[in-house]
Amino acid sequence: MKARCTECGTRYSMDSIRYECRCGGLLELVQDFRGVDAEQLKREFAKRLGERHTPLASGVWRYKELIAPELPLEALVTKGEGNTGLYSPPAVTSYAGCRRLWLKALGENPSGSFKDHGMTAAVSHGRFLGFRRFACSSTGNTSSSLAMYAALMGGEAHVYVPEGTVSENKVLQTLAYGAVVHRFAGTYDDGIRFLREQAGELGLYVGNSVNPFRIEGQKSIIYETAQDLSWQLPDWIVLPGGALSNVSALGKGLRDLYELGFIPRLPRVAVVQAEGASPFHRMMEAGAAELVPEPAPSTRASALNIGHPPSWRKAALVLQETKGVTVAVTDEDILNAKAVVDASGVGCEPASAAAVAGLRRLVSHGIIDREETAVCLLTGHLLKDTDAVGAYHLGGGPEALYANKMNRVRL
Amino acid sequence: MKARCTECGTRYSMDSIRYECRCGGLLELVQDFRGVDAEQLKREFAKRLGERHTPLASGVWRYKELIAPELPLEALVTKGEGNTGLYSPPAVTSYAGCRRLWLKALGENPSGSFKDHGMTAAVSHGRFLGFRRFACSSTGNTSSSLAMYAALMGGEAHVYVPEGTVSENKVLQTLAYGAVVHRFAGTYDDGIRFLREQAGELGLYVGNSVNPFRIEGQKSIIYETAQDLSWQLPDWIVLPGGALSNVSALGKGLRDLYELGFIPRLPRVAVVQAEGASPFHRMMEAGAAELVPEPAPSTRASALNIGHPPSWRKAALVLQETKGVTVAVTDEDILNAKAVVDASGVGCEPASAAAVAGLRRLVSHGIIDREETAVCLLTGHLLKDTDAVGAYHLGGGPEALYANKMNRVRL
Ligand SMILES: [Zn+2]
Ligand SMILES: [Zn+2]
Repeated sequence: MKARCTECGTRYSMDSIRYECRCGGLLELVQDFRGVDAEQLKREFAKRLGERHTPLASGVWRYKELIAPELPLEALVTKGEGNTGLYSPPAVTSYAGCRRLWLKALGENPSGSFKDHGMTAAVSHGRFLGFRRFACSSTGNTSSSLAMYAALMGGEAHVYVPEGTVSENKVLQTLAYGAVVHRFAGTYDDGIRFLREQAGELGLYVGNSVNPFRIEGQKSIIYETAQDLSWQLPDWIVLPGGALSNVSALGKGLRDLYELGFIPRLPRVAVVQAEGASPFHRMMEAGAAELVPEPAPSTRASALNIGHPPSWRKAALVLQETKGVTVAVTDEDILNAKAVVDASGVGCEPASAAAVAGLRRLVSHGIIDREETAVCLLTGHLLKDTDAVGAYHLGGGPEALYANKMNRVRL
Repeated sequence: MKARCTECGTRYSMDSIRYECRCGGLLELVQDFRGVDAEQLKREFAKRLGERHTPLASGVWRYKELIAPELPLEALVTKGEGNTGLYSPPAVTSYAGCRRLWLKALGENPSGSFKDHGMTAAVSHGRFLGFRRFACSSTGNTSSSLAMYAALMGGEAHVYVPEGTVSENKVLQTLAYGAVVHRFAGTYDDGIRFLREQAGELGLYVGNSVNPFRIEGQKSIIYETAQDLSWQLPDWIVLPGGALSNVSALGKGLRDLYELGFIPRLPRVAVVQAEGASPFHRMMEAGAAELVPEPAPSTRASALNIGHPPSWRKAALVLQETKGVTVAVTDEDILNAKAVVDASGVGCEPASAAAVAGLRRLVSHGIIDREETAVCLLTGHLLKDTDAVGAYHLGGGPEALYANKMNRVRL
């Protein structure tokens, strides 16, 4: 396996793990599709939908030839991730305002979020290299997913959490999966720096989004969505933007599908940020060449509360290639959109609903035409954040437009 | 469709909905399998594993011929429920002590619990009859599932909740799916009686477990488990017992599979209750002919906290037919077993872990042999009850044998 620096182009062999270039740039894996027969592969992917009892039944590993052809099947650490629903509820379509809308419910993954797509790839690769100890410095969906896969392979997960900044609630799922949760005095950046400097010596395989295998696994989200729709993607793919590695993975997946001829054209990509944490949107809107980090990001959609997204360069490239756009929405927009998605019977966590809120805004501003079609990627399950549900429905105030109150009756 | 009273044998046409016999007994649907070609059907079920975009892709409706042959495909309200993972983690097998163990992770269903199997059947049937309003008087997994399917079909869910007895947290998922939550002064039994008397007049279709279509849908849990294992079921099926309708559904499903020749013999069934809510276990242990309700049931596994299980007669019959057994376990046993299941990377809610705790006890008492094999049905997702996770790992005291504490470090 080979990787390339996305900044300076330097190439590396990936027979061992490496997270960044000497120049500090992010790495991406180089796939060699020259020997691939696309039509034959498409038939193979169709056939594998009938698999249930092999790693190829997974919605990630179904596409193994395009993700990690070198990994042996026995190395894969999988829970049958992917295979999530694609829904088209009329109430959400009408709320968004475009002609046809699909919601890809990635929260139906085993740990409850889209992170499983990338994490099965990273942990499988780490195991293949002989690692038994996995680490990350996230505290939300990433750490639950890392902990789940590390547990599944009988390994150890080490999660580094800055003291004080994170609610206990967010690490409960991670603790349950048996991860060693290390709290430290310092910032999130200190945690990242620690892992960068010490992971090698400590024998830790790092599962943060800088890991290029995460991105390869995450590509399967758009592969599966495209296959769900018989390889006919809609006009727009709309997704929330926090760390932006999901945008980078989406772009790489779309490029693969287009180069292989699986899809006839690239759909446009819309990245939605929360207003309180929108450095990427501000950069794109200003046409600036560099991202100015937001020192104190603030949004109720905790998965989007990121002021310095590591993958902004890759994300900007994806928007350039797909004639994409960015938009920012308020927390009220996000939580109202979430209420509409929840009440449709699909459901999602707050960050996911930003996609629907953003789509609605883009349609109302005429940037997306009412006659166009879209898919929104819903990143996490409703159950991931029931605090947000309580806050909105039981105490959300006048801005909670769709609050569903309790009803007191006499029988 | 026809139903039969499980007590007096009276038959009813089910062209309209009916929840109980004139004698007060529970009804069960009568399926006519005389025209069924089992071998042909088995091939059909195998072929349908490759379906993704029709209702037959669901792990319930794959088996439609055995569940609700009369319902047209267009009537089905489905989210692709079922299709959940079957895992065999070495640490849990060794904890339980038998030779081979599988965990059926029913929490991977869209609303996070096994209830989706029965509820897709009930709501589909109600819709087929022309109902738009659905009701139940549960407050846990049943109401979330009912609310989700009612929302999905664009209908209304009405959930009746006794005031004071239920934590707000338990109804948040139900509220989010848009259900009308009616709180009333009174007991759970008052709610049931209210629905029994008023549902017809109010035009409500009742989704409580007395609804015989719920049972038909729930049969698919054992169908799917059997198909996962190439129609070779293990020696034992172990499941938690609260309201016991899951035992009744399991028994009906096993009977179907055996009568049709899908499985060569009936596995034995073990029902596990929590000590604080074990009227069924006490009845079976005493060889009594009648169940004595537990007036003040008390267990931390809230889904098992039921003192007067409505389906006890049906459940007793299932144990008789399968040479089954019952066992009771303490809350400490349950929560320790849950910690082991969670740390294996599979994860579940407390009630689910009772199955594993019960299996361990039955093996250690020699009732299940160490050389035998078993499947435990894990009924709900880890995320369904994160309060239990926090209570155990962060404050569980000396009885929390596998508590995973936070670790404070200096980087
Ligand atoms: Zn470089
Ligand atoms: Zn009767």
